[in-house]
Amino acid sequence: MCGIVGYIGGQQAYPILIEGLSKLEYRGYDSAGVALLDDSGVEIIKSVGRLQNLEEKVGNEVPAGTMGIGHTRWATHGRPCDENAHPHSDCSGQYVVIHNGIIENYHALREWLTSVGHTFRSETDTEVLAHLVEHYFQGDLKQTVRQVLEKVTGSYGIVVMSERDPDRLICARKDSPLIIGLGDGENFIASDIPALLKYTRDTIILEDGELAEVTRDSVVVEGSDGKQLQKEIYHVKWDAVAAEKEGYDHFMLKEIHEQPKAIRDTLRGRLTEGGLVNLAELNLAEDQIWQLRKIVMVACGTAYHAGLVGKYVFENLLRLPVEVDVASEFRYRDPLLGEDTLVVVISQSGETADTLAAMRLARQKGSPVVAITNVVGSTVSREADRVLYTWAGPEIAVASTKAYTTQLVVLYLLALQLGQTAGIVAEEEIKNMTEALQNIPADVERILEQEESVKDFANHIKDWEHAFFIGRGLDYAVALEGSLKLKEISYIHAEAYAAGELKHGTLALITENIPIIALATQPALYEKMWSNIKEVKARDAYVFGIVTAGDDETEKEVDVIFAIPKTIPILSPILSVIPLQLISYHASVLRGCDVDKPRNLAKSVTVE
Amino acid sequence: MCGIVGYIGGQQAYPILIEGLSKLEYRGYDSAGVALLDDSGVEIIKSVGRLQNLEEKVGNEVPAGTMGIGHTRWATHGRPCDENAHPHSDCSGQYVVIHNGIIENYHALREWLTSVGHTFRSETDTEVLAHLVEHYFQGDLKQTVRQVLEKVTGSYGIVVMSERDPDRLICARKDSPLIIGLGDGENFIASDIPALLKYTRDTIILEDGELAEVTRDSVVVEGSDGKQLQKEIYHVKWDAVAAEKEGYDHFMLKEIHEQPKAIRDTLRGRLTEGGLVNLAELNLAEDQIWQLRKIVMVACGTAYHAGLVGKYVFENLLRLPVEVDVASEFRYRDPLLGEDTLVVVISQSGETADTLAAMRLARQKGSPVVAITNVVGSTVSREADRVLYTWAGPEIAVASTKAYTTQLVVLYLLALQLGQTAGIVAEEEIKNMTEALQNIPADVERILEQEESVKDFANHIKDWEHAFFIGRGLDYAVALEGSLKLKEISYIHAEAYAAGELKHGTLALITENIPIIALATQPALYEKMWSNIKEVKARDAYVFGIVTAGDDETEKEVDVIFAIPKTIPILSPILSVIPLQLISYHASVLRGCDVDKPRNLAKSVTVE
Repeated sequence: MCGIVGYIGGQQAYPILIEGLSKLEYRGYDSAGVALLDDSGVEIIKSVGRLQNLEEKVGNEVPAGTMGIGHTRWATHGRPCDENAHPHSDCSGQYVVIHNGIIENYHALREWLTSVGHTFRSETDTEVLAHLVEHYFQGDLKQTVRQVLEKVTGSYGIVVMSERDPDRLICARKDSPLIIGLGDGENFIASDIPALLKYTRDTIILEDGELAEVTRDSVVVEGSDGKQLQKEIYHVKWDAVAAEKEGYDHFMLKEIHEQPKAIRDTLRGRLTEGGLVNLAELNLAEDQIWQLRKIVMVACGTAYHAGLVGKYVFENLLRLPVEVDVASEFRYRDPLLGEDTLVVVISQSGETADTLAAMRLARQKGSPVVAITNVVGSTVSREADRVLYTWAGPEIAVASTKAYTTQLVVLYLLALQLGQTAGIVAEEEIKNMTEALQNIPADVERILEQEESVKDFANHIKDWEHAFFIGRGLDYAVALEGSLKLKEISYIHAEAYAAGELKHGTLALITENIPIIALATQPALYEKMWSNIKEVKARDAYVFGIVTAGDDETEKEVDVIFAIPKTIPILSPILSVIPLQLISYHASVLRGCDVDKPRNLAKSVTVE
Repeated sequence: MCGIVGYIGGQQAYPILIEGLSKLEYRGYDSAGVALLDDSGVEIIKSVGRLQNLEEKVGNEVPAGTMGIGHTRWATHGRPCDENAHPHSDCSGQYVVIHNGIIENYHALREWLTSVGHTFRSETDTEVLAHLVEHYFQGDLKQTVRQVLEKVTGSYGIVVMSERDPDRLICARKDSPLIIGLGDGENFIASDIPALLKYTRDTIILEDGELAEVTRDSVVVEGSDGKQLQKEIYHVKWDAVAAEKEGYDHFMLKEIHEQPKAIRDTLRGRLTEGGLVNLAELNLAEDQIWQLRKIVMVACGTAYHAGLVGKYVFENLLRLPVEVDVASEFRYRDPLLGEDTLVVVISQSGETADTLAAMRLARQKGSPVVAITNVVGSTVSREADRVLYTWAGPEIAVASTKAYTTQLVVLYLLALQLGQTAGIVAEEEIKNMTEALQNIPADVERILEQEESVKDFANHIKDWEHAFFIGRGLDYAVALEGSLKLKEISYIHAEAYAAGELKHGTLALITENIPIIALATQPALYEKMWSNIKEVKARDAYVFGIVTAGDDETEKEVDVIFAIPKTIPILSPILSVIPLQLISYHASVLRGCDVDKPRNLAKSVTVE
């Protein structure tokens, strides 16, 4: 979940490392550090906090060297502080390492290294790597790193540098992304493409188990057997400008407003002129679909909430049982999988460690896997049998918005395609749904025009440390996502409840004026929701209701109302989540929080 | 969820009504009221708050009358206040009604009644019943009530009394329990047995759709077709003393300490001398079990959390897919049911409205139903195909403790019985499990002996308004129950997370010293839990760890440790929940909360 940058070439490395790290800061930002190598040896500078702290610490005394490595950290082992920031070095200070991931057996390794005389300066798992390099070094850095990696279990993207074998960076990956950027007389290493875009668009993507020796003029990649590999060069087509804020105060607000476009892009080319679905990349034949007895959706965080919506949609349209599971739970409960179970994994980044591991487990057990991801070339996209991309563009804000709504769009398309191919859903129903889907971007635009109207409620909620979201059915799935959004960026302890469950405990927490967000967009559940709204109103809660335009009855029950345009009820989650995103955003701004980079969180969770 | 008492006989009714209500106060206690009828007409006295408030209001001016009705309320429609308390009367004050349940079409009825000249004094749904009686009355109260009930939709247990047709109480039920107690020259009506125990043990249990006319000397019960029924007399064997606190400060603490006995009672007679399972009442043959393709567990609140443990247990032992669903959600998502799906419903009271409705839906769709309940004669127990009782005895505290652990015991027995009958689980494994199960009561006793050791942590937690519970797998299911317990009785906003999901948002809420309860009882997940504990320790959280005796490694990671006796890991939930119950109890006491009767909550939720 951290950010890695490496440089070796003819230019001074420090500004290049800082520039690259600044593009990766959204991946981790509790501390940062760089190590430079020149004739006088290795120089390491580290600082807790944002990258800016590091730059202030360096000031005008910029470290010299035409090769170096840099890192922005998101703490796992050991709290954020100068000592725990990367790069880490050995006792002699001659070997330096930066690392993403987790070394699982670091405890035992550390005890052994201590017993043979090594002294540790940090609480991190990473530091054992530096001492191991020192321990095994016999002149050849690449050979040493290979030897070291044989000793460790866990996940890593690492870069190693040493004054004892200079003029080369050694890097390797297992379950943590790493990319090499190719220049002219210079080469780059990074955990993510944005760090390289200013310098090069020609890249080599390392796979699990691969190790590379990068010099000024060459890149040699070896497989886990030590044999040299011929790697394809991947040319990045991304536009660097697309990752800027474009006049919005925050990436999150920009991304909320990009949703009409993102949804249009995600629908583009996937509907026929006759209103049917054409998800060509799915490539599942009728008999393959009829063989399915179950669908399992696996994801984490916001993507998991998209899966919960998916469950309702798939069960409703296909009458096929659907399980949704948190990836970190799914992996360890020995799930029942096989050829008759379609596994749908959802990950914006395509690098979410638990989701990736769950996908591998499913493939190993013979289940067909469909991956929904936003990042072309991501590990998930490369390993899945079938990939359905959300064309949302880069999502920089930690709090996911356009990734979620486009994941929903893809899930609707997937359910419809399966139903269409297998003849389970009538053509008329498919056409009704696709017509409504094509209206969704304009519906979202109409919601965004009402942005001002959520500000009063955001102003009420900002003074509270608690909030509750309630809904039934699809509205409950959206309530979960709304509460996560509020929680992660405003630090208000928000929790979502299936409205009928409130009485079984949580109602004890309802006090005068406490903010409640009630979703009531499903006509079949209106009366039940009114009863639940009355329950909290009877305790004097302050209720913000999200309803469908034209529903005058619910309006009578709540304190503030927000109406979304009328659509087919099963599609309402794409619309009803938008006011929830806006409430969270404005509450976060009013509370003075760092909207795009909430404390303790990172954009894509590449450790377990 | 409210409490109902009625009396007609030769004694003064007021003390009898108050005595009965005092035994039902755990079912609802935001307001109370009585109505007495004598020659001078109807007198109604009501008061917001506990029953004691009503008694103080009455003082020495005890209302006269040898017949009357009384009610303790738990607000649904309209907040707690004098006006909204029951009994409700019509415009003339001649007809009085008490009611449990919800009248769903009250809005339309109220508008119509207002338009024809009726004036309403309360915000309740119940008041329409009184005005309807007034509207339709033509001399015969029984006929009038029958006519009124044809106009309403919803659920009800009602008692109606009128000075225009005196010397009789009319009562009726639909989806809300009602019992008639038989005396000598006097008769009683109540929503629950404890209200009657002081006066009689001979009862008639009304079924849905039944209506009764109760006079001093007779009880006539009619079916929904108006025909008179011959009802069985049910003799209550319960001991009234069993429902007292027995020296403990609170019912909850008493019930926590009753768990060894409750678990022993629940196991009694269900294991053979050879260590196999003998759940004779299940009565499912081998071929019926092999026909099952899926198990669905449906419940609310704490019972739902028991179902989550059940999912792990059943999937692990039987390799059969298990879905667990909140009853209020299950009913409205058009679930996939049929003969090949075993539905397990769990409800302590056997009266939980949503669970009951879910059970009826399952039966209607042809699924075999097994009910797990604690109350003999409850609606669930009477309507299920098969009933497995938890022999926990009456549970008075709103926060469920012994019901949960005995529900777990029954779930283990059920899984083992299915596996044993169908030959899916090896005898050796069954014997290991039953041996460990028989040790559980003694294990629980050993945990209870450590009660003092949770007090320091309870003292830490009492100053916080937030707390988080984390765990993986079975530990996550227990974490959910622990957080509900803390939330409902201490009003601390507690939330449980699958430990691997923290990083996907909730970690933003972790600040210095915030209390975290981490469960780490599953050896296969130790290392993953350590990583998650480190994540919160890195943000300076204060961590209470629940581990298995002998696990020295986890101890190093946490601030406070509580070790449960070693058992088979799959059985650990019965043990690990006990320290969580104790923490909640002591935190609640330290915060000065009303442990047994938390605000806004009622013991059994008989409305949707």
